[in-house]
Amino acid sequence: MKIPYLQKANAAFLDRHVTRASDLIQEWGGESFSGVGIIGAPLSKSSISHSGACFAPGTIRKAFSAFSTYSIEENIDLASCMIRDLGDIAMHVTDVLQSQNRVYETIFRVFEENPLWLPIVLGGDNSITYPSVKGFSKAKGKVGVIQFDAHHDVRNFQDGGPTNGTPFRSLIETGTISGNHLIQIGIRDFSNSKPYFDYVNNKGVTVYTMKDVRQKKMVDIMRKSLDKLKDEVDSIYVSVDMDVVDQSQAPGCPAIGPGGMDTQDLFEAVSYLGEQSIVEGLEIVEVDPTVDFRDMTSRVAAHVILHFLKGKRKSVEI
Amino acid sequence: MKIPYLQKANAAFLDRHVTRASDLIQEWGGESFSGVGIIGAPLSKSSISHSGACFAPGTIRKAFSAFSTYSIEENIDLASCMIRDLGDIAMHVTDVLQSQNRVYETIFRVFEENPLWLPIVLGGDNSITYPSVKGFSKAKGKVGVIQFDAHHDVRNFQDGGPTNGTPFRSLIETGTISGNHLIQIGIRDFSNSKPYFDYVNNKGVTVYTMKDVRQKKMVDIMRKSLDKLKDEVDSIYVSVDMDVVDQSQAPGCPAIGPGGMDTQDLFEAVSYLGEQSIVEGLEIVEVDPTVDFRDMTSRVAAHVILHFLKGKRKSVEI
Amino acid sequence: MKIPYLQKANAAFLDRHVTRASDLIQEWGGESFSGVGIIGAPLSKSSISHSGACFAPGTIRKAFSAFSTYSIEENIDLASCMIRDLGDIAMHVTDVLQSQNRVYETIFRVFEENPLWLPIVLGGDNSITYPSVKGFSKAKGKVGVIQFDAHHDVRNFQDGGPTNGTPFRSLIETGTISGNHLIQIGIRDFSNSKPYFDYVNNKGVTVYTMKDVRQKKMVDIMRKSLDKLKDEVDSIYVSVDMDVVDQSQAPGCPAIGPGGMDTQDLFEAVSYLGEQSIVEGLEIVEVDPTVDFRDMTSRVAAHVILHFLKGKRKSVEI
Amino acid sequence: MKIPYLQKANAAFLDRHVTRASDLIQEWGGESFSGVGIIGAPLSKSSISHSGACFAPGTIRKAFSAFSTYSIEENIDLASCMIRDLGDIAMHVTDVLQSQNRVYETIFRVFEENPLWLPIVLGGDNSITYPSVKGFSKAKGKVGVIQFDAHHDVRNFQDGGPTNGTPFRSLIETGTISGNHLIQIGIRDFSNSKPYFDYVNNKGVTVYTMKDVRQKKMVDIMRKSLDKLKDEVDSIYVSVDMDVVDQSQAPGCPAIGPGGMDTQDLFEAVSYLGEQSIVEGLEIVEVDPTVDFRDMTSRVAAHVILHFLKGKRKSVEI
Amino acid sequence: MKIPYLQKANAAFLDRHVTRASDLIQEWGGESFSGVGIIGAPLSKSSISHSGACFAPGTIRKAFSAFSTYSIEENIDLASCMIRDLGDIAMHVTDVLQSQNRVYETIFRVFEENPLWLPIVLGGDNSITYPSVKGFSKAKGKVGVIQFDAHHDVRNFQDGGPTNGTPFRSLIETGTISGNHLIQIGIRDFSNSKPYFDYVNNKGVTVYTMKDVRQKKMVDIMRKSLDKLKDEVDSIYVSVDMDVVDQSQAPGCPAIGPGGMDTQDLFEAVSYLGEQSIVEGLEIVEVDPTVDFRDMTSRVAAHVILHFLKGKRKSVEI
Amino acid sequence: MKIPYLQKANAAFLDRHVTRASDLIQEWGGESFSGVGIIGAPLSKSSISHSGACFAPGTIRKAFSAFSTYSIEENIDLASCMIRDLGDIAMHVTDVLQSQNRVYETIFRVFEENPLWLPIVLGGDNSITYPSVKGFSKAKGKVGVIQFDAHHDVRNFQDGGPTNGTPFRSLIETGTISGNHLIQIGIRDFSNSKPYFDYVNNKGVTVYTMKDVRQKKMVDIMRKSLDKLKDEVDSIYVSVDMDVVDQSQAPGCPAIGPGGMDTQDLFEAVSYLGEQSIVEGLEIVEVDPTVDFRDMTSRVAAHVILHFLKGKRKSVEI
Ligand SMILES: [Ca+2]
Ligand SMILES: [Ca+2]
Ligand SMILES: [Ca+2]
Ligand SMILES: [Ca+2]
Ligand SMILES: [Ca+2]
Ligand SMILES: [Ca+2]
Ligand SMILES: [Ca+2]
Ligand SMILES: [Ca+2]
Ligand SMILES: [Ca+2]
Ligand SMILES: [Ca+2]
Ligand SMILES: [Ca+2]
Ligand SMILES: [Ca+2]
Repeated sequence: MKIPYLQKANAAFLDRHVTRASDLIQEWGGESFSGVGIIGAPLSKSSISHSGACFAPGTIRKAFSAFSTYSIEENIDLASCMIRDLGDIAMHVTDVLQSQNRVYETIFRVFEENPLWLPIVLGGDNSITYPSVKGFSKAKGKVGVIQFDAHHDVRNFQDGGPTNGTPFRSLIETGTISGNHLIQIGIRDFSNSKPYFDYVNNKGVTVYTMKDVRQKKMVDIMRKSLDKLKDEVDSIYVSVDMDVVDQSQAPGCPAIGPGGMDTQDLFEAVSYLGEQSIVEGLEIVEVDPTVDFRDMTSRVAAHVILHFLKGKRKSVEI
Repeated sequence: MKIPYLQKANAAFLDRHVTRASDLIQEWGGESFSGVGIIGAPLSKSSISHSGACFAPGTIRKAFSAFSTYSIEENIDLASCMIRDLGDIAMHVTDVLQSQNRVYETIFRVFEENPLWLPIVLGGDNSITYPSVKGFSKAKGKVGVIQFDAHHDVRNFQDGGPTNGTPFRSLIETGTISGNHLIQIGIRDFSNSKPYFDYVNNKGVTVYTMKDVRQKKMVDIMRKSLDKLKDEVDSIYVSVDMDVVDQSQAPGCPAIGPGGMDTQDLFEAVSYLGEQSIVEGLEIVEVDPTVDFRDMTSRVAAHVILHFLKGKRKSVEI
Repeated sequence: MKIPYLQKANAAFLDRHVTRASDLIQEWGGESFSGVGIIGAPLSKSSISHSGACFAPGTIRKAFSAFSTYSIEENIDLASCMIRDLGDIAMHVTDVLQSQNRVYETIFRVFEENPLWLPIVLGGDNSITYPSVKGFSKAKGKVGVIQFDAHHDVRNFQDGGPTNGTPFRSLIETGTISGNHLIQIGIRDFSNSKPYFDYVNNKGVTVYTMKDVRQKKMVDIMRKSLDKLKDEVDSIYVSVDMDVVDQSQAPGCPAIGPGGMDTQDLFEAVSYLGEQSIVEGLEIVEVDPTVDFRDMTSRVAAHVILHFLKGKRKSVEI
Repeated sequence: MKIPYLQKANAAFLDRHVTRASDLIQEWGGESFSGVGIIGAPLSKSSISHSGACFAPGTIRKAFSAFSTYSIEENIDLASCMIRDLGDIAMHVTDVLQSQNRVYETIFRVFEENPLWLPIVLGGDNSITYPSVKGFSKAKGKVGVIQFDAHHDVRNFQDGGPTNGTPFRSLIETGTISGNHLIQIGIRDFSNSKPYFDYVNNKGVTVYTMKDVRQKKMVDIMRKSLDKLKDEVDSIYVSVDMDVVDQSQAPGCPAIGPGGMDTQDLFEAVSYLGEQSIVEGLEIVEVDPTVDFRDMTSRVAAHVILHFLKGKRKSVEI
Repeated sequence: MKIPYLQKANAAFLDRHVTRASDLIQEWGGESFSGVGIIGAPLSKSSISHSGACFAPGTIRKAFSAFSTYSIEENIDLASCMIRDLGDIAMHVTDVLQSQNRVYETIFRVFEENPLWLPIVLGGDNSITYPSVKGFSKAKGKVGVIQFDAHHDVRNFQDGGPTNGTPFRSLIETGTISGNHLIQIGIRDFSNSKPYFDYVNNKGVTVYTMKDVRQKKMVDIMRKSLDKLKDEVDSIYVSVDMDVVDQSQAPGCPAIGPGGMDTQDLFEAVSYLGEQSIVEGLEIVEVDPTVDFRDMTSRVAAHVILHFLKGKRKSVEI
Repeated sequence: MKIPYLQKANAAFLDRHVTRASDLIQEWGGESFSGVGIIGAPLSKSSISHSGACFAPGTIRKAFSAFSTYSIEENIDLASCMIRDLGDIAMHVTDVLQSQNRVYETIFRVFEENPLWLPIVLGGDNSITYPSVKGFSKAKGKVGVIQFDAHHDVRNFQDGGPTNGTPFRSLIETGTISGNHLIQIGIRDFSNSKPYFDYVNNKGVTVYTMKDVRQKKMVDIMRKSLDKLKDEVDSIYVSVDMDVVDQSQAPGCPAIGPGGMDTQDLFEAVSYLGEQSIVEGLEIVEVDPTVDFRDMTSRVAAHVILHFLKGKRKSVEI
């Protein structure tokens, strides 16, 4: 029986001539697949400061419904793409280390069954980067990471264990990636310590500070980064800690401050990276919707993903 | 293929020994049914003042997930009940009168197919009461209405048409219900005008002011109201305008003010009404989540429904 | 030339059968008058803690437009009353003492020209009480004050001068009123100090704590208060510090806390006081709209005034 | 009788050497006039998403009192200008189409009586653009429109009628303006659909995307736009949908997102346009004060108007 | 060198005749002591839902500075009392179980050195109750617990481990206390499940629902509770989960809802309990300042402590 | 006695390899000293509009704990610097002029005892600039001031006395500084009046408008400013009114608006100024934390100070 006017609860307005970004997303049914798949890693109990980043997978998904699939700037329409939504990784209430391990296990297992998966991981805090990249690299081989972040995130482990301040130290110390294959972009004044800068320096990490970002063209930084990595690694993973953006444009991150990146630069960067076939994974972390204003920061996150997909679309069918 | 830890996005914490109120609710598949069914009427463009009451069907549904099915006070567990969620009535973007008419048509049509439906209507603003009761009475025959409201809502139609200030005038003027079969409870000082009080008086409406509520026992008011209606009407519909509650306890209504009802009185009233088999419909209107604090008012709405169901459960299997 | 549909900016919705409380208020043109006249004293730089009480005259006036003139509980319609709005007393930006003195001078001067003025003074913080009552008593003779407040407000002057914590000490020390003619109602636990309780005791002030309010009937407290004052003073001034109300019902006061009065008790009190012809002035202080929620506390203030006028209306034509 | 210190309620601080922008504005008395006149069109029930844009005429007017009349950058003082405030167009509570028609009728009627009126229309949502330009063009003849907007706003009418998503389709389909005479500036990635881009393309609309805005100089875009229109139309109307600005700088619009225009570019554009005598109307739409932060977006709106008037002042006496 | 006017940063206003509650509190220097000592347990990563209860020790301490030491209702001045502030227990960033164990170890160790300590424990979430009572009972012997809570908090451990939903199950299952020695007050409708009610029933727990609280006098419930416990246990610990209070009066708890306790009842209860010498510990949990309004809920918490101390002061010198 | 895990209340997370900016700050004990010393001037009752700038000394200090001491952009670590915190100047509750005078007296007295003090003054509103510079110049001799501000702040004194709108007029009229030695940077359109622009022009003040800032390089403006002052004055004081920054980047100032400076330009300016040995004082005013979003504006203030110190560190040991 069909009753006129009755529709699913909370249904959004539909315009028959508009494909919304959220229309691309389809709940994964467990079948084998290849291509783009979103997965949520709603963990933020691992954060040093109080964080509601666990809610970001929800708000970023919701932000997709506020935007469309069409890039007028490059006349590229993502309307025919398909993005699988694999759902969220269930987190343990009181065992943070197990939660982190679940990120690893789940990502690895999805890859095991679907080797051509192109993961878009929605954090959660930055601590998920270690298990996420660990799972990614187990599937891909030698991995390079291009990290957008105001911070090095190579803190010591004694002071609190594997937190959102330690993922890149974990990656390097465990040999999951080599320091030479890590590129940090957007590192900011008065937001890091000299000992940790020395650490990444010693490990061969490439660092572009905000001064570099202001003075060079982003596309040149990207090109140079690709050049450095492409012959040395099997696959590249892009990690976007949203606090790389200036606090005025991404107010909903735990560690906000002035002196950050303009969203436009970030969009250009991920769009460029998306174009590269060697770039096979993207994550967005450190968006805390509970302290955001009008989900602005989740909207930026949705645009990051869309620009990444726009890049991908230029080179391959997705 | 089943990946461990992977679950539906935004899944809530589960305790195997707790049935949440939201667990009772199942999306209706279009099959014939009898019993309790929730339906959303997300209309608030009909409001005199700016109102986001259109979002209340969503927030009230969500509030169910914060509460359980068990009344410890009366040792009644609703865990085995089943509540169908019929979804929302699609509203027209720019044609308010058509939107109101869709409420009528949809409710009537559901009844036509499912005569034993016990509707719980989630507004929206109070303007939905006219089409809702019109549909209800077409199915039920002679209808009495017990209205909890700070206001009479019998404004004239010239000043703005059929708004959230006019539903009970519409019901009376169209003969949908008789003034004698309308009982208004919680009418408040400095929130109504003498001409409109004269109007309801002339129409035979029974009025219990907040002074009555403070001085009499709520259960006595209910008993007297039932006595007045039960032999004269075929069915009774309960309308709860949440602004009947004091602003400190229901801060998320458009027309808040001091001097209102205590939630406990409202809960006792709807629980009592739920027990009566002649009471066959319930609506909650005028909850505006966009001006609420922590969805407090939607939480009260969820409790109103649960207490109503508790009452029902005492007399019948639901 | 008259253009159809064009109306004054920000005009409110009009219902031809509703008189809003704001409709009673007419801007004073400077003519001689008698009866109720509102005057704003937007001073809060005199407050010990940061306070935006200077905005309350504006928000309380605005709250009048949310309510009507009709008391259904007592079938009294204020629709034919007239309330003059004398405007606000201009405050000095940097000279607090001069601002306080302007309150005195203005109130005194209005009385000089209009001896039958019944002032409703909208603070501002409680520091305006001293100049206000000083002006009032110069016009009226021996004055008694019935003060609703969580606090004694008889602090010493050395620690900051004449603040919102000192007005009743000022009144007593200057002999403006006698301690015997001051009645404090609603004084609260853990909100005052013993030395100041001793002070008011020594001065003969009558104190009703919240325990008294909880255990006695408000109307009895009022009757007893009137009995005490009516043969000893020429006129009674009612001072309502809104923080006498519980923080859940009046969240917009600087010094909020639990354990306070229910608005219903306050409404009954001022309604009773309004009925007495010897009561010839009312003030409301310590409403800070900048920390309020949805102007709830200003709405309570508007109701206080309406209940006061309802009382007045019972005995005299206003 | 004049009482010292007594002033109109809510009076602002006055500095005898400062002319505030709000001082220029005088309530229109109905007399014949020419020149700048503000008119409010407080309609937002026509919006696809929940919108409080109906409050923007009030907040933008209020924002004028926060700014002065003097442009130090160009040493131009608007202090001697006069801006009439015609008030607001009364909107119908439940009949959206009639409300839209009232915009047309009122604007047309004002022009009929005052052909030299230079209207500044304060929306309201973007749906007012159709009736507003319809009234404008009836008075002016062939009209060109320069639209600042993140969106094309040429949605189909079946999905909800004439909304804030359809005004430019209405203008083109009704022949009110020609597609060739419409210039859209600031159209944004992932905020529009390809079918609608195709539509405007087919209609001959000129489109400058945000990429164009980033890569070209705004003054060049303006010059080129003027060149295109000036010999083909009798008059130019400027429409500013505030969501053209980046969400970080105009957070109070319904459809916010990243990737938008810098306010400085917008100010330069409207200043340039103001200088042109053929530009004879300006509207600002889609400011929703209920979701704004500290009226920031209304402050931007006030600056848009001031920069427009600064431009006008360079060429004519206003 | 002493510079006039220079004072410690952020110093509060001082009135020489007022002792603020915060003046009683002195940072503990490590010396042996007896009597009241506050200790913070800032743990909320153990919460099932997102919680900022870890900030409550800070906001409750701060709330003390808003209140004084004098109970006018009972003419008791706490001004000569001394409350030691032992500081906070350092929590581990990523190891929740270790954090809980640190609560136990610290409390036990303080008792070991200072057997006459009267602890006031500031949570944190309710998960701290298990380690806290474990430490308390190791020092005191057989312990009874009087718990104010809307919830039983006896969830199973499989679904998330030892959370804020399990503390009383932990206490009973480990034999730390006997079910017969647990009294739960304020248990609420639709906030618990029947299986857990059966559990506590089977364990001999005494349950007072909100219906009991509404129908009986609080002092009678207290008297009866004391009678039940006093001959069976060596010491009584009072646990106040602030969500026992109605959401309108304690809006800053994670699990808010209507139908809760009035603060006045809670104050009377803890005051009565404070008077009993066998009551030797108090904790306040589940205050989440990040979702509170104006620290209202922390203010209630401060009053709970003050009423408890008032009770203590009646019987002993503190 | 030392209890494991017990730490000072509200202690922050510590990373042994990170020096936070707040770690540099040590409470002054009254000993003789030279070098950087922070002093709070929590005065905002002198403001024309309602302002909570009195809270900024607290929030700016707190913001230091969110940032580190290391400038990666210039590889300068401030970790070995020492910043004394002299505390706050006690303000009078009701005597604004005395409060202003206390600023003068305190600053002068500190200099008298510690001639080599490099003051960083945390306002408070801009009215503190006059007494602050008066004290500074009494110690230093002929002083030049470089002022970052959207406004001239040379209002007349009749309209409200010495407010936050008058400090630079006070400085010039009293001869404390010469108009020739004042440089105003960032003066904004529609935020000042022509008469006051004429005033500063007549006094020889150098004015850089926002147009200048947009069109010139900040470092050139700085160089030119230094060139102008360095041979004419003995010392230079830098005054930063935070409203010089655009409202999107410094939303927590009383007088916000669009068209302002980018934080990056401000950071470069103060860093450059810090390098100059003749620059011997810095103040930050007009940050109002009560209207800010997530203390963003206080975070900008902290960065201003850190960039200033970075500059200083380049030339001298601090
Ligand atoms: Ca980061
Ligand atoms: Ca990071
Ligand atoms: Ca109502
Ligand atoms: Ca109603
Ligand atoms: Ca008070
Ligand atoms: Ca008071
Ligand atoms: Ca638009
Ligand atoms: Ca738009
Ligand atoms: Ca609980
Ligand atoms: Ca609990
Ligand atoms: Ca300024
Ligand atoms: Ca200034």
